[in-house]
Amino acid sequence: MTLAEATAVRRIDDRIYAAEVHPGWDIVGNTNGGYLLAIAGRAAAAAAGRPDPVSITAHFLTPAGPGPVTVETEVVREGRRFSAVRATMRCGDRPILAALGSFAELTESGSTERVEAAPPDLPPPEDCVKVEPTDTFPPPFVGRVDLRLHPEHAAFDDIGGVPRVRGWFRLLDGEAPSATALLVAADAFPPTVFFADLPTAWVPTLEQTTHVRARPAPGWLRCAFTTRFITGGFLEEDGEVWDSEGRLVAQTRQLALLPRDRG
Amino acid sequence: MTLAEATAVRRIDDRIYAAEVHPGWDIVGNTNGGYLLAIAGRAAAAAAGRPDPVSITAHFLTPAGPGPVTVETEVVREGRRFSAVRATMRCGDRPILAALGSFAELTESGSTERVEAAPPDLPPPEDCVKVEPTDTFPPPFVGRVDLRLHPEHAAFDDIGGVPRVRGWFRLLDGEAPSATALLVAADAFPPTVFFADLPTAWVPTLEQTTHVRARPAPGWLRCAFTTRFITGGFLEEDGEVWDSEGRLVAQTRQLALLPRDRG
Repeated sequence: MTLAEATAVRRIDDRIYAAEVHPGWDIVGNTNGGYLLAIAGRAAAAAAGRPDPVSITAHFLTPAGPGPVTVETEVVREGRRFSAVRATMRCGDRPILAALGSFAELTESGSTERVEAAPPDLPPPEDCVKVEPTDTFPPPFVGRVDLRLHPEHAAFDDIGGVPRVRGWFRLLDGEAPSATALLVAADAFPPTVFFADLPTAWVPTLEQTTHVRARPAPGWLRCAFTTRFITGGFLEEDGEVWDSEGRLVAQTRQLALLPRDRG
Repeated sequence: MTLAEATAVRRIDDRIYAAEVHPGWDIVGNTNGGYLLAIAGRAAAAAAGRPDPVSITAHFLTPAGPGPVTVETEVVREGRRFSAVRATMRCGDRPILAALGSFAELTESGSTERVEAAPPDLPPPEDCVKVEPTDTFPPPFVGRVDLRLHPEHAAFDDIGGVPRVRGWFRLLDGEAPSATALLVAADAFPPTVFFADLPTAWVPTLEQTTHVRARPAPGWLRCAFTTRFITGGFLEEDGEVWDSEGRLVAQTRQLALLPRDRG
């Protein structure tokens, strides 16, 4: 099943879309947030009549298992270039996530370009560590995508320095990446804190915002995620996604929760 | 007038709050986005019954001048620690901004702390450059707060290197900073691109997300904003706000638009 199929939405009426959260996208029973946001984002894009989530934020409200969901949308404003859309994904009456995004038709812009960073330095995918799914960790959903970690992350252990993780991401079976795939890539990697000497394990995401700068070129995506501030019971994960042509195609930041009963 | 007074909201019914966008908070006639979000955030916090915007996102829809506004709120979910709330600010029927946030009661957490950066290095406020309002630039709203730029930004010109701006922020008349003040500080500084050799002037904000990690201690806030990626017609501004006790109290990122007719 392609990601396009796994995130398909069906219009019920002007505001409501139906979708299916497919099995196998979970992390010990909880469906991956990036996959859920990809579904909600497609419903919001359909409501907007504009395909690309230039900036989209999700607040994760309750865990979701596989099964039917609805996405209620509201176009708050339709502007010349951007439409702002709200979306709420529910399983029955239970809200799973609340999203807010601005959608547009992303086209190349001829204006100023200035990039102060390079794509993450990675050995070729075949020399990286393919993450294979298990029932627990690595979680089942990594089997839905092709994830290759930098070899220094192979032991899933402290690598010293700033908590970070880097690797390659692509869809299976040669499916070309899309803006929707970027929302999945933005939440597909193991938490940065797994690669630091920290007494943390499960760090649930409260909120994630992804900016899509451009539609990605076909091929592998280079991804890097970093955490600089673990404080106040929270931590951020800052991510960059670069396409096969060496362009930054997405930036993402999530706010995650430290377990309260630790430390 | 204190910021608390300038952002006051009045409950109309379960969902609707009324507020006043006060004069003098504008940038050539358009009210500052951080100030607008501070008002919307207070309405959303009131609806949530929880004071602190742990993560709040605003999409800016149309410019606003001074005058009465309404904020329509919807508590999407009330959880044990967090309430997710939507808010839409309108002037009459015209939507000004759409917001989505998770609210909580921020208390000190005793869990793991790890901070990979220091507060920005700044000379003391009295040795920095106080930004004085004019009718155009610096804009009138800087007169509503006390903003002191690092001396190297004094000329409002290219400083070389990565586009960035650093300085101090505090409220006037000794008003203590609050979570609401952090939303204002997050959008109070001149754009980073003003301090780089770039053919850009006005960079309207499409979306801004601010994470509030802790309530700030009384006193000056140290702020730093950086732009690394100007590409695809967009640029991000990444900001950090530190309180007088040297704690990171907020992180913020905004996505702004490059003028299309330039470059």
